[in-house]
Amino acid sequence: MLKGYTLPRTPRGTSCLAPEPPWHYAGTALAVEFVADPARVAAFLPAGLEPADGRCAAYFVEWQYASETGEEYLDPVRSQYRETIFLVSAGYEGEPVAYCPFIFVDQDVSLMRGLAQGWPKQSGSTWVTRAYDLPSKATPAVAPGGRFGATLAARDRRLAEATVTLREPGAALPTPNFARAVNVRYFPELAAGRHGRPAVHELVRLKSRDVMMSTVWKGEATLAVFDNPYLELPDLRPTAVLAGYRFSFALTVDDLVLLRDLRGDDPA
Amino acid sequence: MLKGYTLPRTPRGTSCLAPEPPWHYAGTALAVEFVADPARVAAFLPAGLEPADGRCAAYFVEWQYASETGEEYLDPVRSQYRETIFLVSAGYEGEPVAYCPFIFVDQDVSLMRGLAQGWPKQSGSTWVTRAYDLPSKATPAVAPGGRFGATLAARDRRLAEATVTLREPGAALPTPNFARAVNVRYFPELAAGRHGRPAVHELVRLKSRDVMMSTVWKGEATLAVFDNPYLELPDLRPTAVLAGYRFSFALTVDDLVLLRDLRGDDPA
Amino acid sequence: MLKGYTLPRTPRGTSCLAPEPPWHYAGTALAVEFVADPARVAAFLPAGLEPADGRCAAYFVEWQYASETGEEYLDPVRSQYRETIFLVSAGYEGEPVAYCPFIFVDQDVSLMRGLAQGWPKQSGSTWVTRAYDLPSKATPAVAPGGRFGATLAARDRRLAEATVTLREPGAALPTPNFARAVNVRYFPELAAGRHGRPAVHELVRLKSRDVMMSTVWKGEATLAVFDNPYLELPDLRPTAVLAGYRFSFALTVDDLVLLRDLRGDDPA
Amino acid sequence: MLKGYTLPRTPRGTSCLAPEPPWHYAGTALAVEFVADPARVAAFLPAGLEPADGRCAAYFVEWQYASETGEEYLDPVRSQYRETIFLVSAGYEGEPVAYCPFIFVDQDVSLMRGLAQGWPKQSGSTWVTRAYDLPSKATPAVAPGGRFGATLAARDRRLAEATVTLREPGAALPTPNFARAVNVRYFPELAAGRHGRPAVHELVRLKSRDVMMSTVWKGEATLAVFDNPYLELPDLRPTAVLAGYRFSFALTVDDLVLLRDLRGDDPA
Repeated sequence: MLKGYTLPRTPRGTSCLAPEPPWHYAGTALAVEFVADPARVAAFLPAGLEPADGRCAAYFVEWQYASETGEEYLDPVRSQYRETIFLVSAGYEGEPVAYCPFIFVDQDVSLMRGLAQGWPKQSGSTWVTRAYDLPSKATPAVAPGGRFGATLAARDRRLAEATVTLREPGAALPTPNFARAVNVRYFPELAAGRHGRPAVHELVRLKSRDVMMSTVWKGEATLAVFDNPYLELPDLRPTAVLAGYRFSFALTVDDLVLLRDLRGDDPA
Repeated sequence: MLKGYTLPRTPRGTSCLAPEPPWHYAGTALAVEFVADPARVAAFLPAGLEPADGRCAAYFVEWQYASETGEEYLDPVRSQYRETIFLVSAGYEGEPVAYCPFIFVDQDVSLMRGLAQGWPKQSGSTWVTRAYDLPSKATPAVAPGGRFGATLAARDRRLAEATVTLREPGAALPTPNFARAVNVRYFPELAAGRHGRPAVHELVRLKSRDVMMSTVWKGEATLAVFDNPYLELPDLRPTAVLAGYRFSFALTVDDLVLLRDLRGDDPA
Repeated sequence: MLKGYTLPRTPRGTSCLAPEPPWHYAGTALAVEFVADPARVAAFLPAGLEPADGRCAAYFVEWQYASETGEEYLDPVRSQYRETIFLVSAGYEGEPVAYCPFIFVDQDVSLMRGLAQGWPKQSGSTWVTRAYDLPSKATPAVAPGGRFGATLAARDRRLAEATVTLREPGAALPTPNFARAVNVRYFPELAAGRHGRPAVHELVRLKSRDVMMSTVWKGEATLAVFDNPYLELPDLRPTAVLAGYRFSFALTVDDLVLLRDLRGDDPA
Repeated sequence: MLKGYTLPRTPRGTSCLAPEPPWHYAGTALAVEFVADPARVAAFLPAGLEPADGRCAAYFVEWQYASETGEEYLDPVRSQYRETIFLVSAGYEGEPVAYCPFIFVDQDVSLMRGLAQGWPKQSGSTWVTRAYDLPSKATPAVAPGGRFGATLAARDRRLAEATVTLREPGAALPTPNFARAVNVRYFPELAAGRHGRPAVHELVRLKSRDVMMSTVWKGEATLAVFDNPYLELPDLRPTAVLAGYRFSFALTVDDLVLLRDLRGDDPA
């Protein structure tokens, strides 16, 4: 009997990319809240979601991960990764939700866990300023006036750049955020004649538990999204940048809620 | 209407990781044919496959890829990748087939195309000696006595090393090979209580068309597989190394054959 | 007039790998104090240094860097890097000093700054557990019992692994450390007949200023150094592991002291 | 007695980044001949070189390297690298020469060998279309009409893109080329007060021997150089693109000619 929550499934089950949940995460995020063209944002929404006001957020995160008993962070190449997540505002049955059109990550383990959750992950290179609690020209302070930066690149092209200048602690989280995120799980067919009829096509709501938040710092921000010959990310280019944030958070994932099987919406 | 053969699905469909098939591939492979412990090999086989004699092959390949109209090789970070593939011998309904327990790749686009085909891809770093058709101490010749090497690493650990010394052209392909490869397509559920009951769990036979082969060189080989704390690859350690090969090949993929839905074999 | 502290030197001087000092650094280190075979350690010492007792230390560091006015940390791919540093104990004119036989880094900018200081840098992949100040299975606490790990690899082979379990804050730094480090600056000749007579071969003492230290945590440690076909790092394999440490520090470099021109010691 | 042609110098001398010459190289290049603004090109020339007509060339190369007895290509992570080289036309004592203002490489071993030769190497990511001698949409043919591409990126920004369409074999090499290349060897001082007075500052002429060339294909080309906030590479942006080339070559390096000690030209 082969074992493994994902491929590769093997005799002892220790080789699979993503072990069985729960998956525990801790991360430090630099985030920018912005507005994009509402019509362009609406064009990214899957069936079942309703357009909203164009409010978006970009999160640049340095993550550390562990499975229930794996202590992967002791061999941190198995645990750490960097990720950039774009969320857009939408509605589901009249309630506000967040939807992710683009997400970029630098480790395959995270990509695979992401696919199971419906995150549309692809490879990308994220860099985020770190804070060291020492006076030095090499580090900003986590204090009013502290300046942080983040960048995203994929396939040797820079996609986005952000800066955040901290002003005050104690803010609420940016909007949209992960609390009400809706994804699309999708797994294609390859048999001839069935390329457009996926094996899995589901609208799902993410669930997380044991969410822990640090103090949330808020301040001013900039966000640039660069032209790209393939990725449609520039469709989400900011028309206004609202605010920047910096915070740490931790959470656990081992569940998901199916909202709607979208296979009925696929062309016959 | 969102478009895209895989996630991310977007308004114009130019952002998805893997575009709709056909997918065209050209590669140069260094391959080693070897024997592993038949009982250990058998333990890797999914339901529906029958054990065979322990014959295996490792392929170290430098690939270039293009979609039907994409000419991705003109922006080659979108097209080129390196891959190590382990195949083991098995039977399906009494006929010999090849099954892949481990495959390592260095680009997300290849990983995603692979998942659609049931390849159990994960990130790995493959290096293969190249041949330049010039007399130099910096390159082997594609000629009797030419020596080539290949290595595989994942997560900062070396997993395998091979060398091949060419002896004569005109050989048949190593066995097992891609002509009769059987994979498992697998996509897990994340909803609580369903982690062991995948959404997709299929035994499939790969199909390729327009297969082109260069001359196949054959010679002696070595293959070392190193201990690893997580990956079960050392279960396939050679008990005998049979031969080495070097060749180029090209093929096109846009189909797949479902052999058996394995969900009925999953524990309730 | 071309400008640039290092190559490439260009009209405006903004292209050179390392800008003119001062160079400001902030880092978080996981360190392991250990003993290696004193005779083997002695064999690594350059002319001008005296053997000591075999006491060594390995430092695994996540750094952030800025030049005097560059704020490179706002485009952090220009600023952040990870490094593993091995220091061995030695004497210089009867005083204890530290000497670096091996150092591995993952950014060229750091490599070039290092060469100017005599650090024998080469490319390597360092990973170090991070601490997030939140209760989660994904992170250790910076508190008694908190467990951290670090790994080093180069050229797709793992070279070393360490773990540290924190026990108490307020310790002194490990020994040997950076306070009394002596390096060899070396720049070879390539003209025929002069390959063994370097243009620069100097014993130098590092200088840093504005050194800032966080609380130093101390505890137990493990350190494994793996066999390698080329690197002589296993000559420094621990015969005893003394203690582990975790701390942050910041410093500025813009000076160096020449101790001795070693060209007179080179074979004629 | 420590051994090693470069740092790190160790008891057995097997750890140094670059072993003693000769160094043997084989490569396949895609090259673009172009014209840049002559005044801008002239501004990159070191003392001792005379301005020329703005003729430049960019070379995108996949290299394989071996030392005299090392057979590094059998462990190819030690041997293979990709490089982009910009050469500009200049004069030295009235004779035409080539000078390299920018060069980008992806392996530290190549960077270190390069510094010894005066190449101003820094890290960069180069990709070049490969040719497989099989009919496939995944590969161009080395034949009239065959289309090749190459890209360069550094620090997560794309710097340049080229395409070449082959038209006819049997051409001469592009100009400027490596046959008459002049570099600047440079090694800075770090002692306070001496940052602008390098330890090594030499105008040198490269020497290579045993140069072997494949057939040289020539055709049309495009070359784009992108804006960059730090690198002055856009100063060399093409005003006209003349031709594209594809060829393989091999050579050996173990010598260099000192043309002039430039320390006398440095400001006091």
